[in-house]
Amino acid sequence: MAQAAQVKATIGDSEFDRDTAVTPREPGVYDAELSAGWTIIHAVNGGYLLALLGRALGDALPHPDPFTVSAHYLTPSVPGPAVVRTQVIRTGRTLSTGQASLFQYAEDGTEVERLRVLASYGDLDALSDEVRTTATPPAIPPREHCLGPSDGPAPKIPGSSAITERLDIKLDPATVGWAVGAPSGKGEMRGWFGLADGRDADPFSLLLTVDALPPTSFEMGLKGWTPTVELTTHIRCRPAPGPLRVAITTRNLAGGFLEEDAEVWDSANRLVAQSRQLARAPRA
Amino acid sequence: MAQAAQVKATIGDSEFDRDTAVTPREPGVYDAELSAGWTIIHAVNGGYLLALLGRALGDALPHPDPFTVSAHYLTPSVPGPAVVRTQVIRTGRTLSTGQASLFQYAEDGTEVERLRVLASYGDLDALSDEVRTTATPPAIPPREHCLGPSDGPAPKIPGSSAITERLDIKLDPATVGWAVGAPSGKGEMRGWFGLADGRDADPFSLLLTVDALPPTSFEMGLKGWTPTVELTTHIRCRPAPGPLRVAITTRNLAGGFLEEDAEVWDSANRLVAQSRQLARAPRA
Repeated sequence: MAQAAQVKATIGDSEFDRDTAVTPREPGVYDAELSAGWTIIHAVNGGYLLALLGRALGDALPHPDPFTVSAHYLTPSVPGPAVVRTQVIRTGRTLSTGQASLFQYAEDGTEVERLRVLASYGDLDALSDEVRTTATPPAIPPREHCLGPSDGPAPKIPGSSAITERLDIKLDPATVGWAVGAPSGKGEMRGWFGLADGRDADPFSLLLTVDALPPTSFEMGLKGWTPTVELTTHIRCRPAPGPLRVAITTRNLAGGFLEEDAEVWDSANRLVAQSRQLARAPRA
Repeated sequence: MAQAAQVKATIGDSEFDRDTAVTPREPGVYDAELSAGWTIIHAVNGGYLLALLGRALGDALPHPDPFTVSAHYLTPSVPGPAVVRTQVIRTGRTLSTGQASLFQYAEDGTEVERLRVLASYGDLDALSDEVRTTATPPAIPPREHCLGPSDGPAPKIPGSSAITERLDIKLDPATVGWAVGAPSGKGEMRGWFGLADGRDADPFSLLLTVDALPPTSFEMGLKGWTPTVELTTHIRCRPAPGPLRVAITTRNLAGGFLEEDAEVWDSANRLVAQSRQLARAPRA
């Protein structure tokens, strides 16, 4: 964390880049090492995994940028070796579609699938500048009025979470009641997002950003694990340098499941990513 | 259509059930016939295709009901023979995950993939009745004040569309300006949804419902095809008998792409499905 104040990391040379690197083993197959630095309690964060798979697909497909990525989570990932197997499904002029699976190894060496992804890629820099939007950035107080893990009554995810060292998240005080035993009861979580080493956002780090805040279920008064079943992310434009704002909303908790809708806004006030996940609600 | 007024079709014995039927060829492989009855202009409707794949996966997986279905559309489907190839990825106690692809045949007999789906299935009837929601049903006028294809200045999709004969859609007058050359400029489309033969909704027909209304782009003053790139649908509970209400919203049209968020409400005022798609905007 001391590093953040000194030398700002850059896209391509940062903790995030090193920890999401994939090494081609054979065409379409990539070796990877899941870093212990991105764990929440013992499980590896789902957004980090998505970013790693996203990079493998960015290499395998003819287009560089994720436009829409749908991930179904199968089994919890743990730090250590992994392999990504990709398939190019279709290549078109402006979009190409691929599939990727992340596997880890059981004790007997057999592969166990962790998550599977379908994704369509394109070239964000080739898009027109036309924007017609009714979406407005979330009303989040200035960053210096928001709260991070070191700010008093810590809005910390219960249990030891290495990922908090890698992220620079400052939550809107209106959505940190859960940290002091006074959840708002609303399905809302908002805050400023950055990487702790100062690396700016790119389309791959946005795949991490959409799943990096505490779950809205905390503010709904529910404690415990809120495992993602499925998470789909749309990357709508290349993010400008600088901090991001993230707003997550849950409207419907029903039958033991809830959706989380995330929006990510960049420093140029553009909606850069939209995501929705279906998650299991913690048992009350 | 005359039939609708006489004998109400039932789940399991209806146009929709017959046209989405799949026939096992070998384990995990199903033959199907894409009906010309569900086309918009010449292409087969994407929601109909999703329902057909959904039924194949409902047969292949140990759990009966789609909970979350992510579809990436590859090439336009046409009426005629098709084959669905499924794979069971993981089976768990409460959820199982599978993959399905729809193929049709090129002139030389080779298979051409139309769309690919990742889906997690469960048992809707096994869910708790607990509901905590801030979502409210859309404000749509009573059905008799809404407009269908036979109501004067026809809110008809331009071109001949067989699917309009199979559906019983009545649009909110506030979202049919496009049909008389006066689009509202808002990214909104709302209406009542039913099947023309009176069959009630089930989780599979909801996969059709989320992609059955005219595109929001019409109300944004854009004409022409709005092809789906990716569509993910969450089925949140089993729909009650009776008409459905559908509300679709687009907040961000940017760089030639737009998202469409759909909500489907049943006659018991429950949010039964949520979907989001990324689509290409028509060229202005």
